[in-house]
Amino acid sequence: MIFEHALITVQPDSQVEFEAAITKAREVMSAAPGFCSFALHRGIETPDCYLLLVGWETVEAHTEGFRQSPAFGEWRSHISPFFASPPEVDHYDPIAGLS
Amino acid sequence: MIFEHALITVQPDSQVEFEAAITKAREVMSAAPGFCSFALHRGIETPDCYLLLVGWETVEAHTEGFRQSPAFGEWRSHISPFFASPPEVDHYDPIAGLS
Repeated sequence: MIFEHALITVQPDSQVEFEAAITKAREVMSAAPGFCSFALHRGIETPDCYLLLVGWETVEAHTEGFRQSPAFGEWRSHISPFFASPPEVDHYDPIAGLS
Repeated sequence: MIFEHALITVQPDSQVEFEAAITKAREVMSAAPGFCSFALHRGIETPDCYLLLVGWETVEAHTEGFRQSPAFGEWRSHISPFFASPPEVDHYDPIAGLS
């Protein structure tokens, strides 16, 4: 399993609505082939910034499978109205013995 | 529990040595009061960038307890020789029901 690591900055004072929206959006993502886990965290120093960590079986399950499926549009339609800027997304590999 | 979120960029071709060094450094950190968990991940798009997630009981356990203790100097002495730039460190709060 690898992790999608996304930093999402939302518009000021939209946190409650964003969290409700991503709760619905998670249902869409979690049905995707290769999806493994989902964890959302709120910034302490920057409360309008969220850290999203999604476990996928492979990078391709995210970038080719999910992102190129109709479900991606549905996922984004829930959450993109709250974005203050495009999310910063990359991928990380857990290091055996250190994670 | 909250998470320390650190993005650490190391010097080119120093990954093997850095990973050995942080394996030793983890022993120092994991003995600190309030330490909960440790996970290191290697960047897939950027293999010289690491994502470190450390669980602490509180932000203060990290910023006041650990960082102001002699153990912090020991932790940093293991890993700082490999830094390409100062790590970017902030803190995140898991969201109940979404993590």
